Amino acid sequence: MATKQPAVSAPVDVTRFKYSNRVVLKTILGSRDGGVGLVGKRVVIGGWVRSSKAVTEQPATPPLPLPPPKTDERVDETGSKDVSCVEILQSRIPFFRSILKVFGGGNYHLREKLEQVIPRPPGPPPPPSPSIAFLQVSDGSCVACLQVVVVAAVAPISQLLPTGTCMLVEGVLVQPSVLGKHVIELKAEKVLHVGTVEHDKYPLSKKKLPFDMLRDCSHFRPRTTTVASVTRISNALTFASHTFFHNHGFLYMQVPIITTTDSEGFTEKFVVTTLFGKAVKMGKPNANTKIEGISLEVIKSAVNEKSNLVEELKRSDSNKEALAAAVQDLRKTNELASQLEAKEKSKPGTSLKVEKVNFSEDFFSCQTYLTVSGRLHLESYACSLGNVYSIGPRFQADCAKPVAEMSMIEIEMAFSQLEDAMSCADDFFKFLCKWILDNCSDDITFVSKRSDKTCIDRLQSLISSTVEKVSYNDVVDVLKKVTDKKFETELEWGAALTAEHLSYLVEDIHKKPVIIYNYPKQAKPFYARLNDDGKTVAAFDMVVPKAGTLISGSQNEERFDKLDSRIKELGLPREQYEWYLDLRRHGTVEHSGFSLGLDHVVLLATGLTNVRDVIPFPRSHAKADC
Amino acid sequence: MATKQPAVSAPVDVTRFKYSNRVVLKTILGSRDGGVGLVGKRVVIGGWVRSSKAVTEQPATPPLPLPPPKTDERVDETGSKDVSCVEILQSRIPFFRSILKVFGGGNYHLREKLEQVIPRPPGPPPPPSPSIAFLQVSDGSCVACLQVVVVAAVAPISQLLPTGTCMLVEGVLVQPSVLGKHVIELKAEKVLHVGTVEHDKYPLSKKKLPFDMLRDCSHFRPRTTTVASVTRISNALTFASHTFFHNHGFLYMQVPIITTTDSEGFTEKFVVTTLFGKAVKMGKPNANTKIEGISLEVIKSAVNEKSNLVEELKRSDSNKEALAAAVQDLRKTNELASQLEAKEKSKPGTSLKVEKVNFSEDFFSCQTYLTVSGRLHLESYACSLGNVYSIGPRFQADCAKPVAEMSMIEIEMAFSQLEDAMSCADDFFKFLCKWILDNCSDDITFVSKRSDKTCIDRLQSLISSTVEKVSYNDVVDVLKKVTDKKFETELEWGAALTAEHLSYLVEDIHKKPVIIYNYPKQAKPFYARLNDDGKTVAAFDMVVPKAGTLISGSQNEERFDKLDSRIKELGLPREQYEWYLDLRRHGTVEHSGFSLGLDHVVLLATGLTNVRDVIPFPRSHAKADC
Repeated sequence: MATKQPAVSAPVDVTRFKYSNRVVLKTILGSRDGGVGLVGKRVVIGGWVRSSKAVTEQPATPPLPLPPPKTDERVDETGSKDVSCVEILQSRIPFFRSILKVFGGGNYHLREKLEQVIPRPPGPPPPPSPSIAFLQVSDGSCVACLQVVVVAAVAPISQLLPTGTCMLVEGVLVQPSVLGKHVIELKAEKVLHVGTVEHDKYPLSKKKLPFDMLRDCSHFRPRTTTVASVTRISNALTFASHTFFHNHGFLYMQVPIITTTDSEGFTEKFVVTTLFGKAVKMGKPNANTKIEGISLEVIKSAVNEKSNLVEELKRSDSNKEALAAAVQDLRKTNELASQLEAKEKSKPGTSLKVEKVNFSEDFFSCQTYLTVSGRLHLESYACSLGNVYSIGPRFQADCAKPVAEMSMIEIEMAFSQLEDAMSCADDFFKFLCKWILDNCSDDITFVSKRSDKTCIDRLQSLISSTVEKVSYNDVVDVLKKVTDKKFETELEWGAALTAEHLSYLVEDIHKKPVIIYNYPKQAKPFYARLNDDGKTVAAFDMVVPKAGTLISGSQNEERFDKLDSRIKELGLPREQYEWYLDLRRHGTVEHSGFSLGLDHVVLLATGLTNVRDVIPFPRSHAKADC
Repeated sequence: MATKQPAVSAPVDVTRFKYSNRVVLKTILGSRDGGVGLVGKRVVIGGWVRSSKAVTEQPATPPLPLPPPKTDERVDETGSKDVSCVEILQSRIPFFRSILKVFGGGNYHLREKLEQVIPRPPGPPPPPSPSIAFLQVSDGSCVACLQVVVVAAVAPISQLLPTGTCMLVEGVLVQPSVLGKHVIELKAEKVLHVGTVEHDKYPLSKKKLPFDMLRDCSHFRPRTTTVASVTRISNALTFASHTFFHNHGFLYMQVPIITTTDSEGFTEKFVVTTLFGKAVKMGKPNANTKIEGISLEVIKSAVNEKSNLVEELKRSDSNKEALAAAVQDLRKTNELASQLEAKEKSKPGTSLKVEKVNFSEDFFSCQTYLTVSGRLHLESYACSLGNVYSIGPRFQADCAKPVAEMSMIEIEMAFSQLEDAMSCADDFFKFLCKWILDNCSDDITFVSKRSDKTCIDRLQSLISSTVEKVSYNDVVDVLKKVTDKKFETELEWGAALTAEHLSYLVEDIHKKPVIIYNYPKQAKPFYARLNDDGKTVAAFDMVVPKAGTLISGSQNEERFDKLDSRIKELGLPREQYEWYLDLRRHGTVEHSGFSLGLDHVVLLATGLTNVRDVIPFPRSHAKADC
């Protein structure tokens, strides 16, 4: 129920937001003096009620103002009594009745509905209507709320009290009669807009929802102070990233999201298609039949065999690619088995036809995916323009990951080697940490209280520490000599380092960020540059205490023959990589780069632990929900 | 064939790029004095050869240097003679032979191949080997090239001459003995890396490729000065956008790319799926059969009927949504007809089973799309945090569009009305134009010579002109009175304005940008706010001379009942929009915003006309190619 916002002619002498008639609260509350210098100024402000208090009689001395915003978005836990929706509605029955008389006289339907909604008080007469409201209003521009004081003569107070109510108010900034942390409050003179709340249906009406419940109402959760702070921190990190690369002369480019190139070679991808509009063609029996007449027994024995292989690979942990391939293979075989089983049940003894999808009928006449990484495309621009970067969404159809869509920063530099990429990654990471401390201290302070109070100290120590650079060989040597801890996965040269290895390395041994470089080639993507030993590649990971691997990078293979061999060795579809090989055929150059998961830096800065709490609209995938 | 880049210990006293051992050319050529103040400095530079000239004898007086970079990436049209690949190869036969002797002695295959590739000179003996090379080298950091002079004692010259050769060179900056536009050149002392070119296979070996051929080698085209300039302009526009919104206190958010919400209601979308890995399930006969036993005759008559409807709607041009729906309907019916026809041919008299896709088996357990617009999701954040924006890719599976993936900037502001969004759009657009003039003048100057020489004047006039705001009603009135031009599509109230209407309006009548507002509701998306007349909505388009519609925006419907009715009226799937309606149920607020196609601003700034020339890796869709 929105009221029409009138054209405002009120004199406003605090800088208002240029594209609205309101003053953004940060303009008032974000100043060094907390806004006290603005006492006496007339302003229009807008925002949403975070918490409220009402008093029923105008006291001779003004009531104690609500305490200023606390460690959570609602202040209820401090002891001040919240007004429930029923109380409000009950208290306002006379008011609603008079409204009904004036506006809804003939509208019996509306009247009936309202009478149903408003519970009649059981016995004693209704308490007198509240006469003053103290509202903590936030507009999302900063952590702090502005206390807005509304008297009954200005607006129907009970309408304003529920958490989540939107209001646009004109008034005068005054000094509160009782000073709390707030040094200023707004004495409302005109309420220009009210966006009411259906209290019983509004998910944020409940006090302090846990994060998992907030995830279920992702369209409202930025109204909580925590998610608002997370959004401001995330915004700051994006701007900081652009600033860093702009200052160093990098060129921004938006890499294609729809791609035919499989940049990793072993990641599950989303297919992009318009074929479902052409379901007819897909249903058609087709000559390219993949499987026909396979019995359930054959499939089941294959499943057993493949399960064993996966288990074995997991135990040895020796080859990331081989494991990924085996897992995928097992998954497909399992699916096939369950199909066949279902089929057998309904019609024993039959087998199944599996048809190939004809992608030549698709929008791009071939199979296309959502990009997993933009680095390959960035290379093309680096091998022309020098230093380039991209910020944007990247995708993995991996049920084991909490989200399918991640915000990544990727860079590529020509005439650069492994050492350069590591050095740039280190500088960039420190730049981000410093930017957050310099620009988002209120937000970190607030969020860390709910999650991890050591956030600020950690960021400060990350800025001042020197990153430790250790080769993979040395890491294995060191970890093998560890006696005070037994790792679940025994470490052998060539294996990927697990989370517990990494955590021991950075938290117990070095106690600061570590860059591990020169990985075994099987642990890294095909494009990493082969070292002279023929076994390791010029790739690195930057591992940060509490956060794990934040940056992965590499010098990429610029030698045609070596890259060509690697593509063959891994059995990658060569035709997909012709353009990529071309970059080595003509005017090739040494180049290196890295990618950083921006959402994980937000986790590090806020102390939160689930990435679904820091990205907008996290879409949960089927398996995580079941 | 890359040579290993050695660790460089050379004294370099011009600021080098921090993450490489080279100095970026802009550091030298971009200074006010063109670099002349750096004469005598030793530097390492890297880049790709844009054009070259070789002389065969060391002359007593140094030869005329190549003219500095001209209006195209190769300087050949200026009269200086380019060295063709054959000439180079012929001239280097003795050199190749000696290489073969040393490295390829036993490699008969290589020797044979080389002998084939190198045409033998018809009669006279080969000319003497060139002894000095003059190379125009670019590293993509600026329009200008640095002339690098290499004598035969420093490196095998003929290897360096082909266009596209990559090199990393150490040398001393000197004043050219004959001054052209260049005031400085590099006297090479050490060639640290050469990335050779397979001249006959390198697509940019040919002079001045037309744009459509450049599109076919999009991984190399940023090596042309034109596409390099376009990339720098595009980069500048992105940074300018972040700067503008950051300065105004907007928060950046990355909207979800994979979405279940159809934001426009009438756009063809890409489906995102992992179902093809589960082809088994899709091929299975299914109870949810959509069509069964329809004869070809029935379908053919339906096709006729639907074609007529589409034609009629096109002629009247009265309702964008109705036309879109009819076109889609016709397309589907046509497809069905051709399927049936094929089927009939092979087996006369049969009919066809069409199966429904079971999206509950898909990754997200439901059908998901690539987002068409992020404005709906932005609204959710605006209705919590005030002012938000996003920059990123948006998608349309529309064969009539040149690209499927566009770079869009979208904003949303709470407590803002139509007028505010129009004002912000105007300011933002002017800010972009000014930014380009201030930061990319060399690039625009260069590109506009190839496309449209009036670019700079146009940008200047756009900055100084006041945008004209005209209501749709007034536009129709004015255009109906036009007598000096006959429009192909007759204009009736309610119809969409066609390109020729818009062009007449901005180029002939107003001669400056025009904002058209208050469109008929059927011409705009469902979420635009209904005006009091019940017929028009608070939506606008900003139309710019030569560029057409660059910005589309609206105040969005904040009233629950009105929005709910509109969703019903259009028959949109209500369950998709529950969260969106929620924003009106609880704490609703007036809000407005707009979206701008960044790629189209690049077109405007450069004078180019095909959007596929300004985006990286434009993927052509099937129908455009056939």
